[in-house]
Amino acid sequence: MRDPRHIAVIGVTGYTGYELATLLLRHPVISRPTFYVRDTKGASCLSELFPQLRSWGEAPLKPLSIAAITANSAGTAFLATPHEVSAEIGPKLLDAGLRVIDLSGAFRFSSAETFSSWYKLPAPHEAHLGDAVYGLPEIYGENIPGAKLVANPGCYATSVILALRPLTQAGIVSPIQNVICDCKSGASGAGKEPRRDLHFVEVGENFRAYNLFSHRHTPEIVEHTGLPESQVVFSTHLLPVARGILSTIYVTLSTPHTPEAIEELYRKFYAGRTMVRISPMGSLPELQHVTKTNFCDIGFVLYTDGKRLIIVSCLDNLGKGAAGQAVQNMNLTLGLEEQTGLL
Amino acid sequence: MRDPRHIAVIGVTGYTGYELATLLLRHPVISRPTFYVRDTKGASCLSELFPQLRSWGEAPLKPLSIAAITANSAGTAFLATPHEVSAEIGPKLLDAGLRVIDLSGAFRFSSAETFSSWYKLPAPHEAHLGDAVYGLPEIYGENIPGAKLVANPGCYATSVILALRPLTQAGIVSPIQNVICDCKSGASGAGKEPRRDLHFVEVGENFRAYNLFSHRHTPEIVEHTGLPESQVVFSTHLLPVARGILSTIYVTLSTPHTPEAIEELYRKFYAGRTMVRISPMGSLPELQHVTKTNFCDIGFVLYTDGKRLIIVSCLDNLGKGAAGQAVQNMNLTLGLEEQTGLL
Amino acid sequence: MRDPRHIAVIGVTGYTGYELATLLLRHPVISRPTFYVRDTKGASCLSELFPQLRSWGEAPLKPLSIAAITANSAGTAFLATPHEVSAEIGPKLLDAGLRVIDLSGAFRFSSAETFSSWYKLPAPHEAHLGDAVYGLPEIYGENIPGAKLVANPGCYATSVILALRPLTQAGIVSPIQNVICDCKSGASGAGKEPRRDLHFVEVGENFRAYNLFSHRHTPEIVEHTGLPESQVVFSTHLLPVARGILSTIYVTLSTPHTPEAIEELYRKFYAGRTMVRISPMGSLPELQHVTKTNFCDIGFVLYTDGKRLIIVSCLDNLGKGAAGQAVQNMNLTLGLEEQTGLL
Amino acid sequence: MRDPRHIAVIGVTGYTGYELATLLLRHPVISRPTFYVRDTKGASCLSELFPQLRSWGEAPLKPLSIAAITANSAGTAFLATPHEVSAEIGPKLLDAGLRVIDLSGAFRFSSAETFSSWYKLPAPHEAHLGDAVYGLPEIYGENIPGAKLVANPGCYATSVILALRPLTQAGIVSPIQNVICDCKSGASGAGKEPRRDLHFVEVGENFRAYNLFSHRHTPEIVEHTGLPESQVVFSTHLLPVARGILSTIYVTLSTPHTPEAIEELYRKFYAGRTMVRISPMGSLPELQHVTKTNFCDIGFVLYTDGKRLIIVSCLDNLGKGAAGQAVQNMNLTLGLEEQTGLL
Repeated sequence: MRDPRHIAVIGVTGYTGYELATLLLRHPVISRPTFYVRDTKGASCLSELFPQLRSWGEAPLKPLSIAAITANSAGTAFLATPHEVSAEIGPKLLDAGLRVIDLSGAFRFSSAETFSSWYKLPAPHEAHLGDAVYGLPEIYGENIPGAKLVANPGCYATSVILALRPLTQAGIVSPIQNVICDCKSGASGAGKEPRRDLHFVEVGENFRAYNLFSHRHTPEIVEHTGLPESQVVFSTHLLPVARGILSTIYVTLSTPHTPEAIEELYRKFYAGRTMVRISPMGSLPELQHVTKTNFCDIGFVLYTDGKRLIIVSCLDNLGKGAAGQAVQNMNLTLGLEEQTGLL
Repeated sequence: MRDPRHIAVIGVTGYTGYELATLLLRHPVISRPTFYVRDTKGASCLSELFPQLRSWGEAPLKPLSIAAITANSAGTAFLATPHEVSAEIGPKLLDAGLRVIDLSGAFRFSSAETFSSWYKLPAPHEAHLGDAVYGLPEIYGENIPGAKLVANPGCYATSVILALRPLTQAGIVSPIQNVICDCKSGASGAGKEPRRDLHFVEVGENFRAYNLFSHRHTPEIVEHTGLPESQVVFSTHLLPVARGILSTIYVTLSTPHTPEAIEELYRKFYAGRTMVRISPMGSLPELQHVTKTNFCDIGFVLYTDGKRLIIVSCLDNLGKGAAGQAVQNMNLTLGLEEQTGLL
Repeated sequence: MRDPRHIAVIGVTGYTGYELATLLLRHPVISRPTFYVRDTKGASCLSELFPQLRSWGEAPLKPLSIAAITANSAGTAFLATPHEVSAEIGPKLLDAGLRVIDLSGAFRFSSAETFSSWYKLPAPHEAHLGDAVYGLPEIYGENIPGAKLVANPGCYATSVILALRPLTQAGIVSPIQNVICDCKSGASGAGKEPRRDLHFVEVGENFRAYNLFSHRHTPEIVEHTGLPESQVVFSTHLLPVARGILSTIYVTLSTPHTPEAIEELYRKFYAGRTMVRISPMGSLPELQHVTKTNFCDIGFVLYTDGKRLIIVSCLDNLGKGAAGQAVQNMNLTLGLEEQTGLL
Repeated sequence: MRDPRHIAVIGVTGYTGYELATLLLRHPVISRPTFYVRDTKGASCLSELFPQLRSWGEAPLKPLSIAAITANSAGTAFLATPHEVSAEIGPKLLDAGLRVIDLSGAFRFSSAETFSSWYKLPAPHEAHLGDAVYGLPEIYGENIPGAKLVANPGCYATSVILALRPLTQAGIVSPIQNVICDCKSGASGAGKEPRRDLHFVEVGENFRAYNLFSHRHTPEIVEHTGLPESQVVFSTHLLPVARGILSTIYVTLSTPHTPEAIEELYRKFYAGRTMVRISPMGSLPELQHVTKTNFCDIGFVLYTDGKRLIIVSCLDNLGKGAAGQAVQNMNLTLGLEEQTGLL
């Protein structure tokens, strides 16, 4: 019998996988996970790969094998793998009866065309795309407990969607003006593989824009804000910090509002959700407030015309933007409080 | 007789003043400047304040006194002083027959009301405001050689105006969509005074927005792009780097263009200007390309609709954004090539 | 009746105090502490001072007053205050029957002369100095449970003493060669007060030595390693990181040893202590392994002569070097496992 | 006829090669160099590889070929290549009559055994080793003008030798106590090749020791200080900065000295040398004073016993530690002032 609190983690060598490991190792409810990687480098224990885990984060490490994962009672699998790997092994684990929480982009889109056009790959089988729940608990929280497959959202997409959804759902965004999402991320978001442009000397004391008009998180933003693609401009930049995303978002409201009304709108929308915090008027969130946490902090400034609105949304790309949110999704599937093990 | 190559520098203890000192000390044409500061701390020589100047940057340091500055043949004065100090001593130096290049905001506006409303201070005498030339050589180069008073532009304003002016002058910016200027600056732009929020621990591994809708460079941008204030949204952020500004600017064109046409427009506009570089299509400037230089690098990406345009403009806030540009202005007033001593 | 699990924290506005707050707020056994500061700035709740605590770190904030602290049942007080403040209020709290854990240098020395000569201040009453236990649990663990006053060690001193004590206690350090302790610390160790030399621009992309032969942690190192002052050379440097200390320590052994023997010596010495980790031979600890933890990681390389030994000792100056160690001490006084709430 | 001011630079894709390029492109006396690289990636001009050079640093780029280099009148060749490449092509260029300035370790040792034992490679032909002059101008300045082959010293070695040589030459270092050289370098010293441990996330907010007792600069230090290898302990650390080396060096003097005597000793030793600066007593050099310069700044603190001495030596690993020193050596071979183009 599969036990959903018996956890398998596939992929732990990247920044997201490692962050997920540290969260799961500290989690108060689940049993200690087993970790699977393509190449164990001869290690049989997680702390042999990561000396910083020695003495408190000991856990078994095994070569990746569907047979090994499904041989025991594991009931929940996290995939911290590249999207092409997730697309391949996710369905096999689902077929074996495990619940799957995938941190890649493989299952984030309801449409196979969208996936193929942005990821330049054949999409996973449509049945799986259709089954997947987009794992943004503050928006789709009621669908997550029963989901067999949770597609954990992109880091940038999480920061932008959480900032915009209260406005778009309220129908107060002017359809005429573009919605500009100017996003900045720390270098862990670019992955751990050695790359010349991620060398310390190339990132430190530097700052640059990348993937303008072409970032893969664009279709997530479009789908889950409900804004037309033609109205959304999404740009990304590389910050000389290890972790964290700050998105500055420019919206024009269709009618003038007071700042109090906007604050109230956000507070109501996120009432009862512990992992989104609305900054009091007059203050703005900053990266340090959220790094190494699972919070998304949202603040805003409204121009004196009551229409031009700048929203600042901050989160940790490895926390609420990836591993933390994955654990939050797991908590919901296990019937736990969503913030369990995340504060 | 005043000699315009005989230089007095007022204020050298801030980051801008120090940068100006290093540029002038290396300048191949002018004689070694004399430096004046409010408090010499007992030093009579610049290198006593700045040990990094020892052996090559020796220059006299004197207590600030209008009488001392005007007693000899000095013909050009740089003011690297706060705007209230510049507003006070600038006119006195002008009256004594010196040419003044002011790096503060004191003389940047043709309208006293604009100054007073953004700086919350009485403006300098209107005669001086009227006399001042806005020291952006690529735009107002022909007015600078004869100017008695040059108002050196703000750092953010320089990066934004240089990026937008070719478009606004060509009349191809859609009047309907807002022009969004999302700007990020290194910490030297915030000045050298100790402040809790500029402590290494508060800036490093952090990133934050500030002065949204309220930054003092706004009226410069409005005046020198010619865009209506209601169309411009200008925001500023603090990067964890020492120096450099990168501005990401979102414009919608009134009619579709090809990328080639846009590149051509920029290249023509800046033809013959050595200090602005247009990135070849397909590449974007980044901060490291311009730090410790006097260049402003400008690149862009045009969306496939031919209308939505993202411009990336980079400069060093202490270089082209302040001290470098001041030297460029001095070069023009001395009849030199504008890049003299700046490459 | 005083309840030792009822906690008062005096001082929370510095980096150490804030770190202590986050550890105590997450601690699984104690009740939520009350925080006292000299100037509450009108706040009545901790999260009003620190927005990053909102929603999970709410706790009462009160103006510092001995009467207020002692009026209720609080049984343990932490002093995260400057040494002159600790010296003044520590004895009053002791007299009122509280147990005191002081994070400053006020009570670290058994000799009043040592304190006065290094801190240039009259020492606290000798009775209190005599009563104080030096709060290094791995060395003096058996004295801490019964201590009324725990003097939490200095951050540098902790990293050096833990690295040297196994050798000095074994009597294998050559008395002829000097013991060189070359220590490097992140900027949070220098405190949160704004200072020109702690401005982001002055620390980032910089590195410097300071307080050579004159750092106040010297007498702690001498007293608790047992080495003669004339044999110890202790130097300190400022790293461009927020947190962490790495000490490189050069020792000559009196007779040749094998690396295995040295590793065995360290492992035996720290057997059963969870907060000190010995790196396996062939690997060395680094700062990232210990930041945001309470671990002290120790590794070494022995030269082929079996005598010249380099020890590398790493800890987080705010963790094991200050707040974490203070909580570890509290745990011992409460009869808890020392690592409670610290993993 | 070969013209020594006609320059060929072999290797420009690493950090050292690029730094050398920028120095040579700005040099006031030589003609514009030609650059040779193994793989031009289709570029024919340096600025196609390095956009930051556009408009001022245009220079021809050619595929590496001994025939091409020697076909024209080039009289001086810089080798900014790995030591195995230098060992191969250096002799060919010498045979063709060029003067060679090599920035690698290939020709730094008079003994082939030393090279082979530290570099694990067959040494270049002994004749070339014997011909090479160790390019430390402040020590061997008189041998450099006539040298056909200059072996540019290692970066760490330069900082340590310049700090120790005045003491060892004066014969005042105690032979009993070890000389400890605790050195810290920025990440550009580790090269530009992508490596997992040089990823921004692995270097930023981190600090670590490496190559203890095994760094290849050790034999340079031993040979040029004249200290016995058994007395020298040399350790290296990776700083989270792009550039700069700070070495903290611990020496015991054989007899007590006054600080004034030590300062005098250093000042006399370096009298007339512009690129070494001695800090006034009471102040110490720091990294920012020397980054992007060709200076080596040296300061010291002497303990009250007059014998225990800590020397702090700073330089830029790409400047005085590599490319700057190479240009200084070229200046001497061309009969120029050594600081030409370096201030």
